Amino acid sequence: MAKEITPREKDYSQWYNDLVIKAGLADYSAVRGCMVIKPYGFAIWERMRDALDQMFKDTGHSNAYFPLFIPKSFFSKEASHVDGFAKECAVVTHYRLKNGENGEIIVDPEAKLEEELIVRPTSETIIWNTYKDWIQSYRDLPLLINQWANVVRWEMRTRLFLRTTEFLWQEGHTAHATAEEAVEETRKMLDVYAHFAETWMGVPVIKGVKTTNERFAGAVDTYCIEALMQDGKALQAGTSHFLGQNFAKAFDVQFAGQDGQRDYVWATSWGVSTRLMGALVMAHSDDDGLILPPKLAPIQAIIVPIYKGEESIAILREAGEKIKKELEAVGIRVKFDADDKYRPGYKFADSELKGIPVRIALGMRDLENGTVEVARRDTKEKETLQTTDLAIKITHLLEQIQTNIYQKALDFRASMTHKADSWEEFEQLLDEKGGFIAAHWDGTGETEQLIKEKTKATIRCIPLNNAEEVGNCILTGKPSKQRVLFARAY
Amino acid sequence: MAKEITPREKDYSQWYNDLVIKAGLADYSAVRGCMVIKPYGFAIWERMRDALDQMFKDTGHSNAYFPLFIPKSFFSKEASHVDGFAKECAVVTHYRLKNGENGEIIVDPEAKLEEELIVRPTSETIIWNTYKDWIQSYRDLPLLINQWANVVRWEMRTRLFLRTTEFLWQEGHTAHATAEEAVEETRKMLDVYAHFAETWMGVPVIKGVKTTNERFAGAVDTYCIEALMQDGKALQAGTSHFLGQNFAKAFDVQFAGQDGQRDYVWATSWGVSTRLMGALVMAHSDDDGLILPPKLAPIQAIIVPIYKGEESIAILREAGEKIKKELEAVGIRVKFDADDKYRPGYKFADSELKGIPVRIALGMRDLENGTVEVARRDTKEKETLQTTDLAIKITHLLEQIQTNIYQKALDFRASMTHKADSWEEFEQLLDEKGGFIAAHWDGTGETEQLIKEKTKATIRCIPLNNAEEVGNCILTGKPSKQRVLFARAY
Repeated sequence: MAKEITPREKDYSQWYNDLVIKAGLADYSAVRGCMVIKPYGFAIWERMRDALDQMFKDTGHSNAYFPLFIPKSFFSKEASHVDGFAKECAVVTHYRLKNGENGEIIVDPEAKLEEELIVRPTSETIIWNTYKDWIQSYRDLPLLINQWANVVRWEMRTRLFLRTTEFLWQEGHTAHATAEEAVEETRKMLDVYAHFAETWMGVPVIKGVKTTNERFAGAVDTYCIEALMQDGKALQAGTSHFLGQNFAKAFDVQFAGQDGQRDYVWATSWGVSTRLMGALVMAHSDDDGLILPPKLAPIQAIIVPIYKGEESIAILREAGEKIKKELEAVGIRVKFDADDKYRPGYKFADSELKGIPVRIALGMRDLENGTVEVARRDTKEKETLQTTDLAIKITHLLEQIQTNIYQKALDFRASMTHKADSWEEFEQLLDEKGGFIAAHWDGTGETEQLIKEKTKATIRCIPLNNAEEVGNCILTGKPSKQRVLFARAY
Repeated sequence: MAKEITPREKDYSQWYNDLVIKAGLADYSAVRGCMVIKPYGFAIWERMRDALDQMFKDTGHSNAYFPLFIPKSFFSKEASHVDGFAKECAVVTHYRLKNGENGEIIVDPEAKLEEELIVRPTSETIIWNTYKDWIQSYRDLPLLINQWANVVRWEMRTRLFLRTTEFLWQEGHTAHATAEEAVEETRKMLDVYAHFAETWMGVPVIKGVKTTNERFAGAVDTYCIEALMQDGKALQAGTSHFLGQNFAKAFDVQFAGQDGQRDYVWATSWGVSTRLMGALVMAHSDDDGLILPPKLAPIQAIIVPIYKGEESIAILREAGEKIKKELEAVGIRVKFDADDKYRPGYKFADSELKGIPVRIALGMRDLENGTVEVARRDTKEKETLQTTDLAIKITHLLEQIQTNIYQKALDFRASMTHKADSWEEFEQLLDEKGGFIAAHWDGTGETEQLIKEKTKATIRCIPLNNAEEVGNCILTGKPSKQRVLFARAY
């Protein structure tokens, strides 16, 4: 394992790619824009998925599964939806291959579909077409369903985890009797996402609402959580949409209320994806490798024996296995790296690359003294600990690391959030510091677009519970009643 | 909820469809051959998936994720593989839609792919193309990877769960240094499948090896587990393939051995799918609904209060909640159906339809006597139980039900397995009894094919550890050294 990770200072973007590949999270595939999620990366994703899935179930949602393919005509039914997704769709047109004249494999022209099928970029249309059969009266509401699935959006410029043609995600699709209930659901799931990002991933997020320009295609309101990466760029980590009655009208989904009146159903949808893996890497890691929050780390502690001579091997193996069992008994995920082919230095570097939160080194001298050397990945601090109650000490250490990672990211964000009160200040902040910039904006899509063209900065969101404050748009000088959050973003 | 399930005697096939739909397991979708897995069905599948996933991890496998799309040219690389799958492939040819002249949505002819992409029907080719980069030396072996994914095979005749265009499955793909190791892996995973089918699903299976005709496209040997459904038809419930060096050669995956010699890698692949849901339904259920093994039932016990008058509602709700907590405390999955809008008779029928293993009815008289009425779904027996230690009693009852369901299916299979020693006997058994028929066969693909054409019966497998026995082929009279298992099959 040659590390050779480009330092962040030199090229942040290359550092990210190097790290994702060298740490064994993902790799490019033979299919343009698609990635392979490798076992170590998938183990982290599984932990994310399981934690989120439990939160969805705890808030009353059930999982289901809808078809991968969507008939082309379904897309046309919700006008802004098709506009949003038509340009990046994988289209299935045939259902058979055959041998060509020269023995090569060709698509059988006889096997052309009457109606083309779109590989789902998101499932609102196929799901609302199904809900039409499931919803008749208020008794069938609310309908609270989630799906874990793969989706495809034909991206021209892709990056591992952050933007790939195929990605894994979950998409919640709920149906309600009133607009109020649907909005409440939208906000509730935003809270679930924020809670997950902060307490599991250790990534502080700002909850807000998107401007019209940045809204999901087919939504009335798009709520989002926005995170800040170490290079000062923002990353949208999750969205929750209030869809109003748009899809219910497009697919004619009505229900009879308690009073017998018929009305269209109110909808939400919400999703997070494997993009979160990118956020996790970019928020915490350093030039030596990943820094994983203990709650998501597949291995929380690694025990490395420092062999000295043949006779030490059996002794240290026994001692290492004993510590492993003690830690496992309190629920810590432990690896005992007993291999005697690699040197400790190599193992140390590898455990840093993999972001294992705690490393426990155990030598013959330690054994005599009843101690171990414990190093934490986040701060790289080392300390010598008595092995008495080691499991409790490591448990506390893991909790400290989880808290510290979050606090560090929070402090970083605070240091990278500024106010700009003039165009010059805005441009200067963007170019010299990056991060979030709270600035006044005149509320028009035209100005937002113009700012984007001039600076590549977009309005990440209008934060929830935003303070009202009279001011003037940084670009047009027109009146504004609140600041919004700008940033350059992934 | 009108039940209206066609009785098995009248039309077994219709009974199955009715049951799958009425019990809320799955539904047809707007996309030809694709199904929607509904929340109740998905909850059962989730339990299957989690149990299997743990078994895979316990046997040293890691999960990963590979692309949905496979470049067309990859298929051509393993000759028998493309023959096996080319006729049923969904083919992506374009990556964009646009507005047509009349405002309709059309496929953009400008956005044609240079090389068409196949929606994976199985992932050997894309995975072995990836393994080429992952495997250099014996140190990289064995490589033990599993993927949970959706796959697409363009089936002409589809049935919910049993045969659908898109289905969910897992596919294990392992790489080994020797043929022996790979065969051992193939057999180990077959054992895992058999163990899961028998101890979790309560479905007894016969482990065996497929004939050449029935072998997976690209395999050297295909092992399988075969189950028997209540109508006497067999169902292939899982397969495990020894792939030899076929895919390693097709994708040039070589490794350097400890001696420095290079050789092609040995491979296995193995999979089970949502088809298991069909097997589960057809193996146990009756005309009143599902019969679910307790280990897989999303709800293991339902408590139904028998309200009598307004004043009983609060009292029985409190008592019901108390029982619920007691049962949950020992890990039983319980639903307390406290609703006072539906009558008990309706709730009873619904819990039978859903296959909830244990029903606990609680009335005012019971409360006075410190008893409840407990009904088991599998035998429909009822008994009055003292509520003392109820959680322990229900735990035991659930274990009994799990065992009984399996034993019943095992007895049924024994009663439906016969020997045939002549063609007349063979045809008569097939038409009058169905089930498995152990008969001599001359070992040729031609005879196997002829038998299939004449009777629709196929060789399900040559059972493992099959007894040697000299005999004559039932069709050709040619010599045979063992009986093989025939059946009509799903």
